[in-house]
Amino acid sequence: MISVVLLGSGNVGTHFFKAIEKAENVRVAQWFSRQIDSIKGYKNKTAITDNLSELMEADLYILAVSDDAIATLSSALPFENRLVVHTSGSVNVHDLDKKNKRGVLYPLQTFSKGAEMDFKNVPICIETLDKKSYPILKEVATSLGSPTKRVNSNQRRVLHLSAVFVNNFTNQLYRIGHEITESEAAEFDLLKPLIMETAKKIQTLSPYMAQTGPAKRHDKKTIEKHLDLLKNPEHKAIYKLLTKSIQNTHGR
Amino acid sequence: MISVVLLGSGNVGTHFFKAIEKAENVRVAQWFSRQIDSIKGYKNKTAITDNLSELMEADLYILAVSDDAIATLSSALPFENRLVVHTSGSVNVHDLDKKNKRGVLYPLQTFSKGAEMDFKNVPICIETLDKKSYPILKEVATSLGSPTKRVNSNQRRVLHLSAVFVNNFTNQLYRIGHEITESEAAEFDLLKPLIMETAKKIQTLSPYMAQTGPAKRHDKKTIEKHLDLLKNPEHKAIYKLLTKSIQNTHGR
Ligand SMILES: NC(=O)c1ccc[n+]([C@@H]2O[C@H](COP(=O)([O-])OP(=O)(O)OC[C@H]3O[C@@H](n4cnc5c(N)ncnc54)[C@H](OP(=O)(O)O)[C@@H]3O)[C@@H](O)[C@H]2O)c1
Ligand SMILES: NC(=O)c1ccc[n+]([C@@H]2O[C@H](COP(=O)([O-])OP(=O)(O)OC[C@H]3O[C@@H](n4cnc5c(N)ncnc54)[C@H](OP(=O)(O)O)[C@@H]3O)[C@@H](O)[C@H]2O)c1
Repeated sequence: MISVVLLGSGNVGTHFFKAIEKAENVRVAQWFSRQIDSIKGYKNKTAITDNLSELMEADLYILAVSDDAIATLSSALPFENRLVVHTSGSVNVHDLDKKNKRGVLYPLQTFSKGAEMDFKNVPICIETLDKKSYPILKEVATSLGSPTKRVNSNQRRVLHLSAVFVNNFTNQLYRIGHEITESEAAEFDLLKPLIMETAKKIQTLSPYMAQTGPAKRHDKKTIEKHLDLLKNPEHKAIYKLLTKSIQNTHGR
Repeated sequence: MISVVLLGSGNVGTHFFKAIEKAENVRVAQWFSRQIDSIKGYKNKTAITDNLSELMEADLYILAVSDDAIATLSSALPFENRLVVHTSGSVNVHDLDKKNKRGVLYPLQTFSKGAEMDFKNVPICIETLDKKSYPILKEVATSLGSPTKRVNSNQRRVLHLSAVFVNNFTNQLYRIGHEITESEAAEFDLLKPLIMETAKKIQTLSPYMAQTGPAKRHDKKTIEKHLDLLKNPEHKAIYKLLTKSIQNTHGR
């Protein structure tokens, strides 16, 4: 049984708590939040604290706190030589204070507090500075049901960057679709099955093979019609740039 | 029972054929393709032809042919005063020859020949020039299991334009994610659950509410790191433009 002290009670902290609760070989020995009120509801399930000097001894400390807080919090930990990880896609593993053994458990998923999340849909990228820590992190992630992947710093960085493209930027394209349909009192809801199908398609097909549409077909007539329809200059610029990008990928 | 003559044997023609085959109140009386070989396999299921002068009488003619072929083919039809529709999101309904009653059955979905498609996930946008045609088109679409929506020309146009954003452009963002991860030998597969979740999220949440990430947080440090990592100038430009777009949507 691997014992974990969890620090942070935001989206990731809360989802990790729930996933560890269900896991067989891991348990949350203690949960730290600087706002104890936010985890009071869990005090029958684990020890809770808002005081770093009360932290228990454990096999693993997971810092699920804001990127900016990781370095300071890791320095404030009142112990040495234990295994401490953060959960960020973009923060350097060396930002963790070197008095402890350091690593990263980066869950490649988008969490929101309300929605449930099955960790079989949360690939966890594991990075460690010393080899001995890897099996522990691997066992924790596997116990949660997550697919796992050992990565180096560069790989974690590009995965995080790619996540911005396929999650944040994609979501903004949905938003623009919403704005455009509403401008003519058409229903955005009609686009939802297409959005699901677009995501589903690349589960088995490469995005290269999955591409269709006027840009790929170099269909100038339709592209011109679309540019005429777009009134917002920013939407126009995005249309042009992504059309050019598709055409560079799929040259004639 | 509504009788349909289907013209065209591409992606849409083939999916319509299969969907109508399963439907109760509609049947394909005849299937036309200029390449008869492509539909020979169906000759036990319906009458097939490659000769326009052999077209049977039917309640509805569906022209599921390339955008560019719609006008010419509709003029070449050797009859008048019957109901003729095309299936395009962008072609004007007036491009159909006015000797017949005209309309559009625009399926708002992305079809590929291999994959099966359940028409409950294919919203069909219906446009007609005369009121009497609407109930027939509505009944056909409903029989296939599709959600239906009556639209005018402007609405169909903006839906098609929005489809380009949420389907083609989104797929290109997946492609860029693929390129970026591969540049460091990281696995694109790790991003697939995130891609599904991003699409799933907006089935119940507006894209506005679903947004997260460095752009929305106005997190300059992470944005700078990402721009540093991006080597391809086109990827950099897309990153900048979509970040700006998110920030315009979510001002401080
Ligand atoms: N959200 C995601 O989808 C996601 C996905 C993958 C990785 N991550 C990473 O996971 C980490 C946590 O993200 P999150 O989404 O859970 O953030 P969040 O919901 O904003 O929660 C942040 C947590 O950190 C705590 N915190 C902030 N500053 C602190 C400090 N100086 N000392 C102690 N605690 C502090 C916050 O406490 P208060 O409530 O008191 O402010 C809160 O409990 C980040 O590194 C993020 O990059 C997030
Ligand atoms: N694919 C989609 O996801 C989708 C979604 C919604 C709407 N649509 C619309 O549906 C229509 C058909 O698209 P599609 O994807 O099925 O295209 P497709 O797979 O390229 O098939 C086009 C069909 O049109 C035929 N055709 C082309 N020119 C012709 C001509 N001059 N005379 C007679 N037949 C001709 C082709 O015959 P040959 O095989 O002999 O070339 C083929 O059967 C288009 O208006 C498109 O905008 C497509």
